Amino acid sequence: MNNKLLVLGTMAYDAIETPFGKTGRILGGCATYIGLAASHFKTQCGLISIIGGDFESKYLDLLKEKKLDLKGVVQLKEEKTFFWSGKYHNDLNTRTTLETQLNVLTKFNPEVPSKFKDARVVLLGNLDPNIQLEVLNQMTTRPDLVIMDTMNFWIESYREKLDQLIARVDVISINDEEARQLTQKYSLVEAAQELMAQGPRYVIIKKGEHGALLFHGNDIFCTPGLPLEEVFDPTGAGDSFIGGFTAFLVQQEKISFEEMKTAIIIGSAMASFTVQEFGTKALENLSYGELVKRVQSFKSLTEFEIELI
Amino acid sequence: MNNKLLVLGTMAYDAIETPFGKTGRILGGCATYIGLAASHFKTQCGLISIIGGDFESKYLDLLKEKKLDLKGVVQLKEEKTFFWSGKYHNDLNTRTTLETQLNVLTKFNPEVPSKFKDARVVLLGNLDPNIQLEVLNQMTTRPDLVIMDTMNFWIESYREKLDQLIARVDVISINDEEARQLTQKYSLVEAAQELMAQGPRYVIIKKGEHGALLFHGNDIFCTPGLPLEEVFDPTGAGDSFIGGFTAFLVQQEKISFEEMKTAIIIGSAMASFTVQEFGTKALENLSYGELVKRVQSFKSLTEFEIELI
Repeated sequence: MNNKLLVLGTMAYDAIETPFGKTGRILGGCATYIGLAASHFKTQCGLISIIGGDFESKYLDLLKEKKLDLKGVVQLKEEKTFFWSGKYHNDLNTRTTLETQLNVLTKFNPEVPSKFKDARVVLLGNLDPNIQLEVLNQMTTRPDLVIMDTMNFWIESYREKLDQLIARVDVISINDEEARQLTQKYSLVEAAQELMAQGPRYVIIKKGEHGALLFHGNDIFCTPGLPLEEVFDPTGAGDSFIGGFTAFLVQQEKISFEEMKTAIIIGSAMASFTVQEFGTKALENLSYGELVKRVQSFKSLTEFEIELI
Repeated sequence: MNNKLLVLGTMAYDAIETPFGKTGRILGGCATYIGLAASHFKTQCGLISIIGGDFESKYLDLLKEKKLDLKGVVQLKEEKTFFWSGKYHNDLNTRTTLETQLNVLTKFNPEVPSKFKDARVVLLGNLDPNIQLEVLNQMTTRPDLVIMDTMNFWIESYREKLDQLIARVDVISINDEEARQLTQKYSLVEAAQELMAQGPRYVIIKKGEHGALLFHGNDIFCTPGLPLEEVFDPTGAGDSFIGGFTAFLVQQEKISFEEMKTAIIIGSAMASFTVQEFGTKALENLSYGELVKRVQSFKSLTEFEIELI
């Protein structure tokens, strides 16, 4: 057993507008959020991604400082970094994409560094399922746990490949609307059962501010979202969630439903920090003590006594 | 201390259409659901309501059989019972009102039976705030707990009276959209704080399938909705919730945040039964053993271990 975590995902520039303000081009991308979330745990975390010549070295320095292994990050000097800009509406639950420039992403042929070909856990962040499969195929040993994330775009346009991938992972993490879209089941319980029948032993359904559900066989675990006084910028919440979830699991000797429950809480706590500042700022500055405190507040939020019978 | 619970609310006929079927005219109304939920607890529960000559005696018999005190229910023989019909959309989270016939409701001058003028707990179900205030004014002793429910219609058109009422209750129970509408705050934490500043010591925010939040000072408690394989008919879920919540509290010697947390779970369990059948059927047939079992499933749904630090 090693403590290596391999993360596939985008490294990007984002420009974000929320009711509270507007950013210029800031650091973004799912691999970035996942890596920063994972950096709070004792794992050797390697990223696989692609960036352009415009990707500032200060951001690479930041990620290195956080002990993230960037051997799997390719930089194409003559290309530009993947760019996304979006605007959140007043309720912060919905957003409009203003612009997507794929840029380097169109030239992405991921190569897993030899050091990570035996990683214990692989997290396939939200990307083209062809690329997700490519990374999985390069592993020399079957990881203890393969986790995948996806989104509506891939469900609509890459269904066949996506189904191939789903059949090969242990954990699928998607949001409620996507779970319904994938399975054509409105009930999330039925949707999760349908997804498990396709392969994954665990299904995570993310519900944004309403929390997350974890399904495994007939077992269900549920955490509410932490009620926050202020939500500043939801970008990266899902990635922070799955990053914290996964990195916590890499640390555990045994990975079963019990450890996954705690991991769901860790992920939720991580996401709750991310949304309180623009971009990756909160994850960068987070201390372990703050994380522990917030996890405890999840406990007190949901704990109750029964004295029936 | 007595165990009397006074409930103000409608007794109605509903006609409901969901993706799973359609009912004829069936028993409905918030006092009905609340009373049936309360009937599972050791309280003396009296209803205040008004019905028409068309209200079938079999329904009155049913409520009496459940030990509900109907002295406060006026029947106007020459009038018709309040009628509501609605159609739920495919997601069951949204509905369209097809028809509302106020009928007897327009002649409602509530009179609290002398037996209930010293009730320990008063639950003012969703109705015209003038009528809710009228009932409160008839109490001879200040109840230990006054709980109110309301909805968007009263917020829009009866704001001044509604504010007078809010200032006089201990607990307000509303759904998330209504909390935002009432306070003009998007954050539910801020909305709850704003509501508490108006009077109530406790604020309950209902989020339908996403569960419920309880606020008291700086304390927050949260329960997710129980993930159900099938939701059949959401009508009465909120009333069953507050009915179970309130009746459980009437049984408790002390009523503080701790007891309220358990009460929130009881209410959520009650609502989870209601939505599994059309109308009041599930509440009518529910056994105490089934209720206990479901409350325990809420516990296992949210319980987790932390071993951080």
